[in-house]
Amino acid sequence: MVTSRWTAAPARAASPRRRGPVLERAILDAALEQLSTVGWSGLTMEGVAAGAQTGKAAVYRRWPSKEDLVVDALRVGLPQLVSAPDLGSVREDLLQLCGQMREAMFSRSGFALRSVLHECDTATAERFHDVIFEGVVEPSVKLIKEVVRRGIERGEVRAGGTDDYVCDVIPAMLMYRSKVCGSEWQDVEFEALIDQVMVPLLRR
Amino acid sequence: MVTSRWTAAPARAASPRRRGPVLERAILDAALEQLSTVGWSGLTMEGVAAGAQTGKAAVYRRWPSKEDLVVDALRVGLPQLVSAPDLGSVREDLLQLCGQMREAMFSRSGFALRSVLHECDTATAERFHDVIFEGVVEPSVKLIKEVVRRGIERGEVRAGGTDDYVCDVIPAMLMYRSKVCGSEWQDVEFEALIDQVMVPLLRR
Repeated sequence: MVTSRWTAAPARAASPRRRGPVLERAILDAALEQLSTVGWSGLTMEGVAAGAQTGKAAVYRRWPSKEDLVVDALRVGLPQLVSAPDLGSVREDLLQLCGQMREAMFSRSGFALRSVLHECDTATAERFHDVIFEGVVEPSVKLIKEVVRRGIERGEVRAGGTDDYVCDVIPAMLMYRSKVCGSEWQDVEFEALIDQVMVPLLRR
Repeated sequence: MVTSRWTAAPARAASPRRRGPVLERAILDAALEQLSTVGWSGLTMEGVAAGAQTGKAAVYRRWPSKEDLVVDALRVGLPQLVSAPDLGSVREDLLQLCGQMREAMFSRSGFALRSVLHECDTATAERFHDVIFEGVVEPSVKLIKEVVRRGIERGEVRAGGTDDYVCDVIPAMLMYRSKVCGSEWQDVEFEALIDQVMVPLLRR
């Protein structure tokens, strides 16, 4: 299931005297908002301050650079892939999981993440590697492994189904076809991916 | 085999009165040189003109913008993947092909291409989609399909081995692990990819 750490509290407080965590959350929320509307290149500390209804100094006091701010905003705001489906069939589980990954990708935070991935240069991208890896890739791969492991236990999937490269195929294909083919991953494309690739790759 | 359209003629002419195709080639060559040294963000029309030992006006006369210039430079300079290996085994053929793709990626033009892919924003990247697709992805996938088709004819590979999603797995994994894991694709990684994924995916 996709949840967001943002749902725990209102994202933007109305009080003009917000402090500490409340103000910080409003600033991080405004940063994500900027990323998903004007993108990485268009994001400015001024714009974020305006969005959070605070002054530029309040932003710079906490985050010396745009990079620092966005790293924190992504870290806190990324949707979490928290539970693996368990429908009794690897095919159905993987299809469901693909749907959850798409849901995360097309969330506001997902748009923000894609904006950073697509727009920033290689040197800057380095700084986001850990955030992206720990926040998106690792959880997805972990859930895929869980689904495949259950398939092995049921005798549906061959030994070797949880090999590292095997469990990278779905996120790799999602990234590749989004980037190269401009795919937005309709259901029928997920089905083609699972039936042409994952089912033959995993079966005993 | 990886060849370059650049090898047909010397890239930079010495004459100060170069015209037409000779001057154009020198300019495109200087653009690639800039891309592979200072990257997309660092490339300037002035720098390209200086590199080609010509004036800025000579560049602007032919290419009104940096984008136009780089589109043409990539189109002409990209290494060509022209022939599929035929070693009698799909495993060996795919390993050889992966090596050729790495060779192309780490060529000067390959660096230039990666620089553009990594650095430019989404809107600009749209302009390079066709160049990248027609120059790199399509030829790679075509050669993979050729290798797999021969495997089917030999009875080594299952029907369905040439399905679109199946033949996208190698380029997808190359892109994904370069970008997400920072992999530079050592031989041992190619072997893991082929043995963990492609051999089980293709076998009858």
